Amino acid sequence: MNNSLDALFKPRSVALIGASQKELSIGNVIIKNLLHYRFNGPVYPINPKVEEIRGLKSYPSILEVPGEVDLAHIVIPPPLVPEEVENCGKKGVKAIIINTAGFKEMGDEGQALEDDFLARARKYGIRVVGPNCQGIINSDPAINAYCNFTFTYPEPGHISVVAQSGGVGAVIMQAFYDMGIGQRMYASNGNGSDVSITEFISYYGDDDETRAIVLYAESLENPKEFIAAARKVTARKPILAITAGRTEKGAEASRSHIGGIAGSISMDLIYQKAGILTFTSQEDLCHAAVALSTQPIPKGNRVGIITNTGGPSVIAIDELDSCGLVIPPLSKKAEKILKTTMLASASVRNPLDVVATAGPAHFKSALEVMMKEPLFDSIYINFVTPPFVDCENVAREIAAAAKAGNKPIVCNYMTDKQKWGATSKILKDGEVPCFDFAETAARALHSLVRYNNIRTAKRGSIKKFTGVSRNAAGKILRNAREEGRDVLTASEVYTILEIYGIPVAPWKIAGDANGAVDAANAIGYPVVIKADAEAIIHKSDVGGVAVNIKDATEAAMAVETMKKKLGAEINFFVQKFLPKGKELFIGAVASSGVGHIIGFGLGGIFVEVLKDVVYCITPVSDTEAAGMIGSVKAAALINGFRGEPGINREKTAEIIRRISMLVTDFPAIRELDLNPLFAIGDEICVVDARIIV
Amino acid sequence: MNNSLDALFKPRSVALIGASQKELSIGNVIIKNLLHYRFNGPVYPINPKVEEIRGLKSYPSILEVPGEVDLAHIVIPPPLVPEEVENCGKKGVKAIIINTAGFKEMGDEGQALEDDFLARARKYGIRVVGPNCQGIINSDPAINAYCNFTFTYPEPGHISVVAQSGGVGAVIMQAFYDMGIGQRMYASNGNGSDVSITEFISYYGDDDETRAIVLYAESLENPKEFIAAARKVTARKPILAITAGRTEKGAEASRSHIGGIAGSISMDLIYQKAGILTFTSQEDLCHAAVALSTQPIPKGNRVGIITNTGGPSVIAIDELDSCGLVIPPLSKKAEKILKTTMLASASVRNPLDVVATAGPAHFKSALEVMMKEPLFDSIYINFVTPPFVDCENVAREIAAAAKAGNKPIVCNYMTDKQKWGATSKILKDGEVPCFDFAETAARALHSLVRYNNIRTAKRGSIKKFTGVSRNAAGKILRNAREEGRDVLTASEVYTILEIYGIPVAPWKIAGDANGAVDAANAIGYPVVIKADAEAIIHKSDVGGVAVNIKDATEAAMAVETMKKKLGAEINFFVQKFLPKGKELFIGAVASSGVGHIIGFGLGGIFVEVLKDVVYCITPVSDTEAAGMIGSVKAAALINGFRGEPGINREKTAEIIRRISMLVTDFPAIRELDLNPLFAIGDEICVVDARIIV
Repeated sequence: MNNSLDALFKPRSVALIGASQKELSIGNVIIKNLLHYRFNGPVYPINPKVEEIRGLKSYPSILEVPGEVDLAHIVIPPPLVPEEVENCGKKGVKAIIINTAGFKEMGDEGQALEDDFLARARKYGIRVVGPNCQGIINSDPAINAYCNFTFTYPEPGHISVVAQSGGVGAVIMQAFYDMGIGQRMYASNGNGSDVSITEFISYYGDDDETRAIVLYAESLENPKEFIAAARKVTARKPILAITAGRTEKGAEASRSHIGGIAGSISMDLIYQKAGILTFTSQEDLCHAAVALSTQPIPKGNRVGIITNTGGPSVIAIDELDSCGLVIPPLSKKAEKILKTTMLASASVRNPLDVVATAGPAHFKSALEVMMKEPLFDSIYINFVTPPFVDCENVAREIAAAAKAGNKPIVCNYMTDKQKWGATSKILKDGEVPCFDFAETAARALHSLVRYNNIRTAKRGSIKKFTGVSRNAAGKILRNAREEGRDVLTASEVYTILEIYGIPVAPWKIAGDANGAVDAANAIGYPVVIKADAEAIIHKSDVGGVAVNIKDATEAAMAVETMKKKLGAEINFFVQKFLPKGKELFIGAVASSGVGHIIGFGLGGIFVEVLKDVVYCITPVSDTEAAGMIGSVKAAALINGFRGEPGINREKTAEIIRRISMLVTDFPAIRELDLNPLFAIGDEICVVDARIIV
Repeated sequence: MNNSLDALFKPRSVALIGASQKELSIGNVIIKNLLHYRFNGPVYPINPKVEEIRGLKSYPSILEVPGEVDLAHIVIPPPLVPEEVENCGKKGVKAIIINTAGFKEMGDEGQALEDDFLARARKYGIRVVGPNCQGIINSDPAINAYCNFTFTYPEPGHISVVAQSGGVGAVIMQAFYDMGIGQRMYASNGNGSDVSITEFISYYGDDDETRAIVLYAESLENPKEFIAAARKVTARKPILAITAGRTEKGAEASRSHIGGIAGSISMDLIYQKAGILTFTSQEDLCHAAVALSTQPIPKGNRVGIITNTGGPSVIAIDELDSCGLVIPPLSKKAEKILKTTMLASASVRNPLDVVATAGPAHFKSALEVMMKEPLFDSIYINFVTPPFVDCENVAREIAAAAKAGNKPIVCNYMTDKQKWGATSKILKDGEVPCFDFAETAARALHSLVRYNNIRTAKRGSIKKFTGVSRNAAGKILRNAREEGRDVLTASEVYTILEIYGIPVAPWKIAGDANGAVDAANAIGYPVVIKADAEAIIHKSDVGGVAVNIKDATEAAMAVETMKKKLGAEINFFVQKFLPKGKELFIGAVASSGVGHIIGFGLGGIFVEVLKDVVYCITPVSDTEAAGMIGSVKAAALINGFRGEPGINREKTAEIIRRISMLVTDFPAIRELDLNPLFAIGDEICVVDARIIV
């Protein structure tokens, strides 16, 4: 399948339909870019009105181009596009980049044009990038394809970029360029009518020269497909993404609070599920990509620090520690060696302060010892270039260590890069990832550890719990739908939960006071009695709940009172009234394109006031469920407090996974809330629940 | 006082004692720097062994220099320093920079040398920077003093830097240089034996050309003096500081949890008290300094956005929103104008997407409307340089708006700065703060708003509450100390609290069972009875507490049981047993150099597990106390939850201020904990308390 993108990224020839002699026009800039970047094949400007553009012969039509055309840009007005796509088909063009804007983003008329050209492209088997897009770049020296109207000419490298927004793509490309970092391939596909973000990711995943993939997307056409494809890639190489729209206030109104909370963070959850490293800062992302595309992945989070200046070391440790990395002490053996090789004023510990006057021999020994030290998984270096030190040879030692070693190195390189040009070049040629600030170097190192965690994390197993009668649950849901009900009755909800093996407080249904008394007697007092009708969602607001009922008299009275208030035609849900336990919350909400999102939190204030809920896209594996429980901010409370026992994590995780199975079995469930569950001693039990279909 | 620093920053002549012909030596580099930076006065190398250094005549001794010497560097070995300081005194030198290391940082011998040269310097009224330091820079074209061995030659500008760590100072200086931003003065004073960080801050504060001050300090000699001086400066111009050591795990062991928590964050608290903007990232700090030294301070947090690209606008909004800035809709009036002046494809709202093809006229109108729009306090611009747009004239419009307007502008300027050199120069000359990334531009804008908040915040008043008998409280504390007790008895603690007008649950002291019964009868049941002895800190662990005592029999029995367990020689503290209210925590811990640190949090899990406590250095004003209450992460709970009433903020703030007064009156109080206080209805009452002297 990916081969169809070869014509896009490895075209043997490129035509530009809508080429122009006007310098400040896209139809001219793309020709300029192809020539400037030395595209390794013929470029055919198409414009019936002129003879030549930038020294190239212009053709009146794509059909009159003498040779084969692999790739065509289209930059003419929207109404003319479908016919030119048709002509491309006739010519045998294999891929088209439609830079022109004014299609589906402009409404129905544009959508019709987009449908039209797409149908024609499909007829001829042409792949389309865009419309409303920049295009692609391939820096492979055998290709040199700059099919794009941007202004940054990347050197060859190992980072490939795909960005829905050309603006962000251009910023990231320029950032790498400014850092002197090469790039491999680039794509910005705008409306994404045909070739999708997912396809680009897979294509980069299969490209041996791509070591790290950078992604910017604000939405995904088919998140499930994306997750599946991206997971394959992230097992082999890192994908780094900006989480866009992270603060967007829930655009879709939702009747349930979880919907409101989860909606705006679903891109983040998609990335998490796919094993993608997420960033809120483009700059941090670029730095991480530099480290990930040059350095081996560390086996753990233990860092050895070499520094020739004091303050930046404090800042580095602050940042490393904040990121959860550890700075273990030197081993006795390492300390012994370094005491003989370092200057007298050096501080032999971790961080190892070699002091500003340290020369190449001191750095060499420091690097040798740190690289061999089994207590460290990676090496962080602060290297300021003192005017009284042979910095070029220090740089040679660092580059040699990076090249030889099997541990990653990052370097906070503090200098004037012009004045120390030779030193800078040695580090660059040695592929030593260098950063201007201690904190940015530390964060880049952290991204290496994050990727190690992703790559080595057990994705866990999705359990199909046995003893569950899916048919029985399905019948209840179908029945509700057939009766035109969105909100399930309590008896329906609890029956479904019991079918799926989720522990609930004992309950019975009664039609009247006598029935309620019988039910309460059977369950044992105290009980809670609730009016059980679909229309009564906020039962306590309308007097539809009576709690802590201690005997038959109270039970009968409660039912009679509710009947009077709410009408005779309702049932009563009688349930064991449990002593207040530690509250938990588990919920699920259907999310377009991904199945469901499961939420977990401690109940009460933690969910409702402090919004301390973690989410995961279904299906939730055992390791994911355990991770959710450990990820709430108030996780420390789960272990118990002031001598009280904690909450049983295994049982909690199992309920999360059973809920995941339930909603996966029934995509029709729009919302499900277990709120609260009570953890009492070692047991966990649903006390209130709701299902909306 | 500051005049004594004029000789340092505005020397008419500089000598270098220890000058050297060796190129890779500090004694040579400083000469090179002075010459390269075109120091506006004579430079005198002092070295008895050579005739000339870098073309300058070398003198055998400072005493033989023909002219006057305002400033001398000393770079000779430590044992020789005192005598040379003496010679400087004889020569009439006014300021000395001692670059040499090997003084108090190396132990007693070094300290003795430091004491020696300091005594001689003081005898002659010489100010000393260092030892173990870089020195100073003054970029004033009338001075051009580069008395420093670093390698960055700043252009004149309006940002002044003082850094305890020369490494961090050098990084920050280079960062401004790389951004093309000028600097005013620079100082790194190492051991800080004489001229202090505080003096530099005050000196920069009085310098009219300094518009923003950058600070890096890991510790402060006299924090109280620093706070007083810095507050004066921050009322007029911003000080920006890196919070170093922010993750340091409490180095000093502390018996009380508040000490442990507060110790590591005290630099942050000092900065907060002084109205200093704090940063954890050097890069963010540099960006903020650029914005603060070029732009007016906004009057509020409402941002108007102009963008010519989509994705970066999403990232900007994410960051602005995360920082608490708001992006209000355009007014109808603004919308009406822009609908006539923008391109058809533009999106006329806030953010205003002028689209990539927008030219100078579109930007001009957008800027005019946004600058006039009363709904916006500041303007954020995304400006990518499309190859098909007249970007130079767009830049001219932005620069003109920045120059004319009374609202600040920040610009995410996305380009290749070499290729768009002319455009970049127009923005630079217009003092438009430009940043490479949307998120960094947004954070720089946020720093402007943060400084506005600091500058306009009422610092509040420190109330001296009346009706407090300081003498009575002092007598109790003196008595405990005379008896050699660290931990005050409950009766002492509650008496002191009552003296200071802090509401406590009613209590009495009893010597035996009968007394306890009488006390309980007087107070009213239920009561709690506690063994009241200094040695019994963790009373409940040793059976020294009996709660919820409902009648005389229970009271008598409780006392007898405790007597048996704990011995006869103790008193009993009888107190009203209150129903469990909402828990609060207020504590104070003495902190070296600053007085006390007051902590506030919701009690129980919020303090003990979630560590959700905010701190403030004494004395705490009314606005500071209110700010503390609003700053805990769980602040939303203070307003009440699930229909329950909230906690009375005024009464809570008053208790914080009364505690502040108490510990300020008695510096001998090392720790004070009110843990918990109960908020019951509108009342707040201390339920357990502890004081350690």
